[in-house]
Amino acid sequence: MEHIVEPKELQKRMVILRQKGKRIGLVPTMGFLHEGHLSLMRIARSQCDVLVVSIFVNPTQFAPNEDLDRYPRDFENDKKKCEEEGVDILFYPTSESMYEEEYSCWVDELMLSKGLCGASRKGHFRGVCTVVAKLFNLVQPTLAVFGEKDAQQLRIIERMVRDLYFPIKIIRAPILREPDGLAMSSRNKYLSSEERKQALCLQKALKGAVLRFDQGERSSRILKEEMTSEIEKMPLAKIDYIEIVDDQNLTPVNEIKSPVLVALAVEFGKTRLIDNQQLLF
Amino acid sequence: MEHIVEPKELQKRMVILRQKGKRIGLVPTMGFLHEGHLSLMRIARSQCDVLVVSIFVNPTQFAPNEDLDRYPRDFENDKKKCEEEGVDILFYPTSESMYEEEYSCWVDELMLSKGLCGASRKGHFRGVCTVVAKLFNLVQPTLAVFGEKDAQQLRIIERMVRDLYFPIKIIRAPILREPDGLAMSSRNKYLSSEERKQALCLQKALKGAVLRFDQGERSSRILKEEMTSEIEKMPLAKIDYIEIVDDQNLTPVNEIKSPVLVALAVEFGKTRLIDNQQLLF
Repeated sequence: MEHIVEPKELQKRMVILRQKGKRIGLVPTMGFLHEGHLSLMRIARSQCDVLVVSIFVNPTQFAPNEDLDRYPRDFENDKKKCEEEGVDILFYPTSESMYEEEYSCWVDELMLSKGLCGASRKGHFRGVCTVVAKLFNLVQPTLAVFGEKDAQQLRIIERMVRDLYFPIKIIRAPILREPDGLAMSSRNKYLSSEERKQALCLQKALKGAVLRFDQGERSSRILKEEMTSEIEKMPLAKIDYIEIVDDQNLTPVNEIKSPVLVALAVEFGKTRLIDNQQLLF
Repeated sequence: MEHIVEPKELQKRMVILRQKGKRIGLVPTMGFLHEGHLSLMRIARSQCDVLVVSIFVNPTQFAPNEDLDRYPRDFENDKKKCEEEGVDILFYPTSESMYEEEYSCWVDELMLSKGLCGASRKGHFRGVCTVVAKLFNLVQPTLAVFGEKDAQQLRIIERMVRDLYFPIKIIRAPILREPDGLAMSSRNKYLSSEERKQALCLQKALKGAVLRFDQGERSSRILKEEMTSEIEKMPLAKIDYIEIVDDQNLTPVNEIKSPVLVALAVEFGKTRLIDNQQLLF
């Protein structure tokens, strides 16, 4: 496995690999890798010649009040996991090299970013789009894999690829869950054991919505009410949002007539967890 | 010469040419081609295997009050000129194909875009950056040529390439002028014969500034006053701005101690002309 720290060095390396006709797969991560990340790598690995994984805790996607400084990091362990997954190039740049002095260029998606996490996390998706565009231009991958766990992010990246014509195939990777159902996330590490127990309510609420939808319920209001009361049973849970939105354009839906995304964000103490579920016909 | 209208068709074509190891040169234009554009093509031609010229009057870089609808067009003549210059691929997409339904992704440069034309033309450089980023991703050129005439645009594109890591070399092409000194521009066509005569004051003012700078004058205020009075001699001229800014970051300079850009925008009736001059040591 090659280790590359300098963005320009990565780009030079990738240009050569592209010229050789290699299919390049990219899995962008913020590190503290868990099975969810590894599943993305396996999906990419199976479809490319050269697998690039980036580890970069991107400061521009954190608001000043968020958890940039305490975001969990374990580079040695991440490196080991990447080796084991057969990663070819591990890219772990510094913030200083990714954002030069007088940095001034941003990629901004203005429709899908408005609601859900975009409403609570101002500037978050601008930071995400910008860093992903930069990684795309550095790596010039044939394909890139993003997890369904960050459902809004995934759709925004797909929109960015469509609108800005990035010649890159985006692959959606399904959510991986712990045995008890909690969606895997680097942020789960923050949870106290009591919070960890109560956090199961997210998956329980989503499963409840699937069941009621399968039984024929089509009212978003009713489904949201039921999810809300499920989550409010947990004294440590503070709901940020529970939304049912069009699966494509992420606008709120009242009566479910076409595929929707049920998405929620719930805080446990300082830890904000997200989860989601598509409802398909 | 190949003619391509569909963005995705262009991208497919370019992917093949890139795989063959061709050096690709791009000259993005809004058409109504004059010698200035042709000089850009010749510069690109001399450094690439495949020369791509785009003709697209990009609606998103025009404000609602601007001249999008009356912007001059002469596609048949443009095509002939491109043939004569040995252009390999002429790309002339429609607005509908460049901006799909629910278009929502923008590239925004936030520092160099603030002053000069960015102050008078709100949203202009966001439109420019966005369409250029799209063209870059469609064409995937090795190099792209932009004219010094649009000095601020050139620096913003260079900044975008730096910040977003586009793997593209940007080449600056010098301003081409009519025999009497007026900088070539598709918009010169708008001028009445009297306006056309008076428009020479732009170049005269800039030449005056160079002369006074060479004589040792270092005060921006004095140089700007002298240029202002030169231009105000012309009754049809309405000054939008006359600025002396740092040549790199485009911030206003009081005392000239390092390279600056003298930039001005002057209106003649409905026609807005720009011109500029570097002052180097």
